[in-house]
Order: sequence, then C-alpha cells, then structure tokens
Amino acid sequence: MASLDDTANPSGHLIGADQVQGTVVYSLAGEKLGSVEDVMIDKRSGRIAYALLSFGSFLGVGGHYYPLPWEKLKYDTEKGGYVVDVDRETLEGAPSYSDEKTATWGDDAWSRDVYMYYGVHPFWDIVPGG
Amino acid sequence: MASLDDTANPSGHLIGADQVQGTVVYSLAGEKLGSVEDVMIDKRSGRIAYALLSFGSFLGVGGHYYPLPWEKLKYDTEKGGYVVDVDRETLEGAPSYSDEKTATWGDDAWSRDVYMYYGVHPFWDIVPGG
Repeated sequence: MASLDDTANPSGHLIGADQVQGTVVYSLAGEKLGSVEDVMIDKRSGRIAYALLSFGSFLGVGGHYYPLPWEKLKYDTEKGGYVVDVDRETLEGAPSYSDEKTATWGDDAWSRDVYMYYGVHPFWDIVPGG
Repeated sequence: MASLDDTANPSGHLIGADQVQGTVVYSLAGEKLGSVEDVMIDKRSGRIAYALLSFGSFLGVGGHYYPLPWEKLKYDTEKGGYVVDVDRETLEGAPSYSDEKTATWGDDAWSRDVYMYYGVHPFWDIVPGG
C-alpha cells in the first residue's frame, strides 16, 4: 500500500485494489480522517462505483462506512495516502451505513444521492453501459 | 467471497473488491482453472482494467498472473465462482507475467494487446475519459 502513484512504478496508470485497500485518507488540511476499507465495483459497467471509507474513529461512530465517488480521491505521494477535498462538516452529514448487509446503497436512487451529495455527476449518466 | 450475485443480496449490482479477490474461476466445461488474485483499476477512468487471474497450478507455471478483461468474467451462482469462456489452449498462449514489479501491463499498447487477444474491445476507446 505504499507506492501507488510512484512514477517509478511500471504499473503506471493502473493500481491493484489490494493497494487501495487500507490506504490512509487525509483532509486538505492534512488531518488523518480514516482509511479506504474497500472499493465497490459496478458489475454492469466495470466501473468503481465508490471507494468505501472507514472514518469510525474520526467521527466517533465506530464501524460506519462512507461511500465516496472514486473521483474524489487524489493520491498524494508525499503523504503516501489519499487527500479528499471534503471537510469534517460535510463528512458528518454524508450518506453512510453501519451494516453492510442492510445497506441500501445498491439502490440507484441512493447511489445518485451519494454522488449528488459530493457534487460529482453520476458516471452512469454519461458512460455507455454504465 | 461467497454470495456475489445472490439476488437476495441487497448490494445488487455492486460488489466489493474484497469479495472478488480469491473467487474461483472455472472454464465453460466446469474445470477449476484458478482464482482471481486482484482487480486492477485504471486510475484515470475509474474502470476495472483487468481481473488478475492466478492460474499457476493449472498451467504448471507457478506465480504467473493472467490479466483478463473484466467483461470476460461471468458469475455462476451455482458454482459460487466465475466462469470464463476461455479454453486451456487460449490461456496457455495468453499475455501473462511472473513478476508484478517488472510487468509492462501499464503500457497502453500492451493493455490493448490483452484486450485484443480475448476479442474484447478496449474500453478506453469507447468510454469518455477512459
């Protein structure tokens, strides 16, 4: 999980999901927010629907998962982690769930809400087959 | 890694990368070929570029990884694994690499070769930003 966007890395523009999982996520201010729990794949289009962030310790609500549009993650080679342009207040009000089994986030309307919340246009509106 | 496409699964059309990793891959004839080692993400587009298959024991060349276009994986709920329409001869001649560090598969031309080998049109030709 160390050298994701390292220019010396021959994998170039590709990254393994196992390298993304567990990577630390920082705010723009440099505050450590949490980490990437997993990436969720839209099976129909083969797109990453979300990065699934675990901010439990930060928000004081252990075990909560926050789906974040993939486009929001920017890798910072100096920090060795992702920097997201999302502040604490935005995160606190963001769509989340505590139990993967009861989550409704496979629901299209809910998925749309997540993207709209972060101001990202849903990829399935603009990508063929998405 | 069990109930990926279970219709009772509320995650519906979404699947976590951690559920894909380790899932067994079968041939159309029902032969167990190997398993999914990882999924490789195209960072620019947020698309799955490949599923990375490990067929080491099947082909007798331990530690070799075979990138396969995501579109080739069809989940079979009865088998509890992926079925790929790829026969043994095709696999034996497929692009592969033995060492992730020296792989050239981040190279666009090489990536194109992989897709062409399996008769899949490269998504970056048809997807905006891909």
